[in-house]
Amino acid sequence: MAKSTASKVASLVLRILTIVLLLISLIVLTTTSKTVETDSGDLRLRFNDIIAYRYVLFTMVIGVAYSLLQLAFTIFSVISGSEGNLIFDFYGDKIISYVLATGAGAGFGVTNDMKQLLELGNFFEKSYASISLLFLAFICTAVLSVLSSYALPKPL
Amino acid sequence: MAKSTASKVASLVLRILTIVLLLISLIVLTTTSKTVETDSGDLRLRFNDIIAYRYVLFTMVIGVAYSLLQLAFTIFSVISGSEGNLIFDFYGDKIISYVLATGAGAGFGVTNDMKQLLELGNFFEKSYASISLLFLAFICTAVLSVLSSYALPKPL
Repeated sequence: MAKSTASKVASLVLRILTIVLLLISLIVLTTTSKTVETDSGDLRLRFNDIIAYRYVLFTMVIGVAYSLLQLAFTIFSVISGSEGNLIFDFYGDKIISYVLATGAGAGFGVTNDMKQLLELGNFFEKSYASISLLFLAFICTAVLSVLSSYALPKPL
Repeated sequence: MAKSTASKVASLVLRILTIVLLLISLIVLTTTSKTVETDSGDLRLRFNDIIAYRYVLFTMVIGVAYSLLQLAFTIFSVISGSEGNLIFDFYGDKIISYVLATGAGAGFGVTNDMKQLLELGNFFEKSYASISLLFLAFICTAVLSVLSSYALPKPL
C-alpha cells in the first residue's frame, strides 16, 4: 500500500522530533558530572562511570544515526516521488524503537536505584531529565513504527 | 489480509514459549534472595529491595497475563475458524513487546551496576539469569509483533 501524504508528513515531523529529542538528551547526559570530595582528593564522577549510562548513550547515538538516515531517505522520496523502501522502514523503525525502549528502561532502572545508594546531588536529576527525553524519542519512534507497519506491502 | 495457517501455528508456538519463559523468569526472580550478616543481625535481601526489579516483575506479570489471554483467543479462533481481532493483536503485541523491552533493559542495567557496588554472592547471577529469560520472551513477542503487523488489515 502506498503511504498517504498525511502519513508522510507525520513521519517527517516525528523523525525531526526524534532527532531533536535525542540530540538534547545526548548533550545533557554527556555533560552530566559531579565532583565528589574524598580523603584522597577530589573525584570527578562522569556519566560513563555508570555502566548502564554507556549503553544509554549507545542507544541515543544509534537512534540519531538511524533517524538522520531515514530523514535523508524521506526527503529524497518526497523530491523523487518514489515510495522509498517500505520493508526497510518497517524493520528499521521496529528495531530502533526496541533499542530506544531498552535504553530508556536501563536508564530509568539504574537511576532510581543508584539515587538510593549514592548521594550525588543533582547528578541523577540531570541523568533523569536526559533519559526522560530519550523516553519521549522512543514514543516518537514507536508511533513511526505503527505508521510503517500500516504502510507495509502485504505478502500473500 | 487473512493470517496463513503457518503464521497461526508460529504464533501459537511463540505464545506458549513466551508464557513458559516468563513463568520461569518470574519464579527465578521472586525466589532470589540473599542473607547478609550485619552488625545489627542478619539482613535478608530480596529481589524487591531493588526498585528496578519490582518494575521487572511487573512487566513479567503483564506479559504472562496478556499472553494467556492471547493464547485463549488463538485457540478460540482456530476452533471457530474466525480471524480473531487483528487490530487488537497488532497493538497488543506491539505494546507488550515494548513493555518487556523496557523491563529487560531496566533489569540488565541495574544488575550490571549493582554488581559493582554490592557484594552479594550469586544474588545478581540469579537475577541476571531471570532477566535473560525475560529478554528471550521479549524476542518472542517482538517476532509475534512482526507477524501481527503483516496480518494487519490495510486502511483505505
